[in-house]
Amino acid sequence: MAAVHKTSPKGGKNVLIVYAHPKPESFNGALLRKAVDVLSSQGHNVVLSDLYKMNFDPLVRLEEFSVSDSGSAAISRAVQEEVEKVEQADLVVFQFPLYWGSFPAILKGWMDRVMQVMSGFVRKTGFYEEGDLKGKRALLSFTTGAPSIPVESLEAILLPMQVVTLNAVGFDVLSPQVSLGVEHGTEEMLEQYLADWARRLSTVFEEPTSEMLTVDSWAEKHCHV
Amino acid sequence: MAAVHKTSPKGGKNVLIVYAHPKPESFNGALLRKAVDVLSSQGHNVVLSDLYKMNFDPLVRLEEFSVSDSGSAAISRAVQEEVEKVEQADLVVFQFPLYWGSFPAILKGWMDRVMQVMSGFVRKTGFYEEGDLKGKRALLSFTTGAPSIPVESLEAILLPMQVVTLNAVGFDVLSPQVSLGVEHGTEEMLEQYLADWARRLSTVFEEPTSEMLTVDSWAEKHCHV
Repeated sequence: MAAVHKTSPKGGKNVLIVYAHPKPESFNGALLRKAVDVLSSQGHNVVLSDLYKMNFDPLVRLEEFSVSDSGSAAISRAVQEEVEKVEQADLVVFQFPLYWGSFPAILKGWMDRVMQVMSGFVRKTGFYEEGDLKGKRALLSFTTGAPSIPVESLEAILLPMQVVTLNAVGFDVLSPQVSLGVEHGTEEMLEQYLADWARRLSTVFEEPTSEMLTVDSWAEKHCHV
Repeated sequence: MAAVHKTSPKGGKNVLIVYAHPKPESFNGALLRKAVDVLSSQGHNVVLSDLYKMNFDPLVRLEEFSVSDSGSAAISRAVQEEVEKVEQADLVVFQFPLYWGSFPAILKGWMDRVMQVMSGFVRKTGFYEEGDLKGKRALLSFTTGAPSIPVESLEAILLPMQVVTLNAVGFDVLSPQVSLGVEHGTEEMLEQYLADWARRLSTVFEEPTSEMLTVDSWAEKHCHV
């Protein structure tokens, strides 16, 4: 897995896809392949982190606690490689099945370890607008078993992932790509999801990003209690 | 680690503590020891799942996908042991540091694997009020680095953990025990947190449980947009 993105002669961008599903024949696998195809055909450079295939270790280990104290980090090679991929990327796409309203453990561990290193905790930069990843785009593309989710609940479900994690390290977050009810979806519905995804990705660098929220401003915006 | 709870002669209850921190000398470790002491001295039977110490594997594996299709499950021994501990428990306490607004990966994986097996997905029971774990209590006790979180944001941050996970499998959820800003907390503040925790646990079985919410009813209750 090459961590180095080459500059495209066509002015393409660097895209990292972080993928967290163990079954290639799953619908997540189909969404992944579609993304690689579309983005590559647009002249972008696509790098893939297939977390299950890489056997990515999701556990924050004891030795990593030394990081925040000394500033010089006991960062493992696997984490450092992911850090470098993110540093090279203009856009990071996360493709995963929503498990219990959140990331699968292997992807949560990627956040726990990789985003930790790139955050104000270790880099001593700020958070949110002052985050080190400012200017980079992030996009959550996930599937659900549930055939519908009320929009207000979806906004809340996304809070830990989009605001507390991605916004916090500085990412500009794009609206999520949500493929609902895929487990019992018809062939036609799944084809439609793939077509929607392909269409969207073809202009993903022209999309406006969502307003950057913080844990505080989220509450003001979403909950008028 | 014995998975069997004995019935206490004093009419004590069975409590499972699921603990997710690699450092025994952390404040999470102190909260854990306090819980074990208080609950044991009250005559309750305490069983501990120390996930890091157990080297609990948090990854949903390919073979576990056979579960939902056939009904007969390819459940690993490690997961089956956790299932049995939960089945014996009257109360499950989760002790963990909040990482990026959610469970650390090792605990998220415990949810992904153990709750999956105990849920309507596998057991073919219903969800929420019809969940198989109805009548059991669950309590999230977590520490944060952030010294404060707006209450509406906290409600939203808890949605995936308390509603989408614990309520969904039928647990009656108690209000969370939140120890804010422990990283830079004064000795006095930390002592106060431990004293609050001890006091609360001494009457934890008399506490009222929170209203059981679903992803749909959460939105109605919390966000009037």
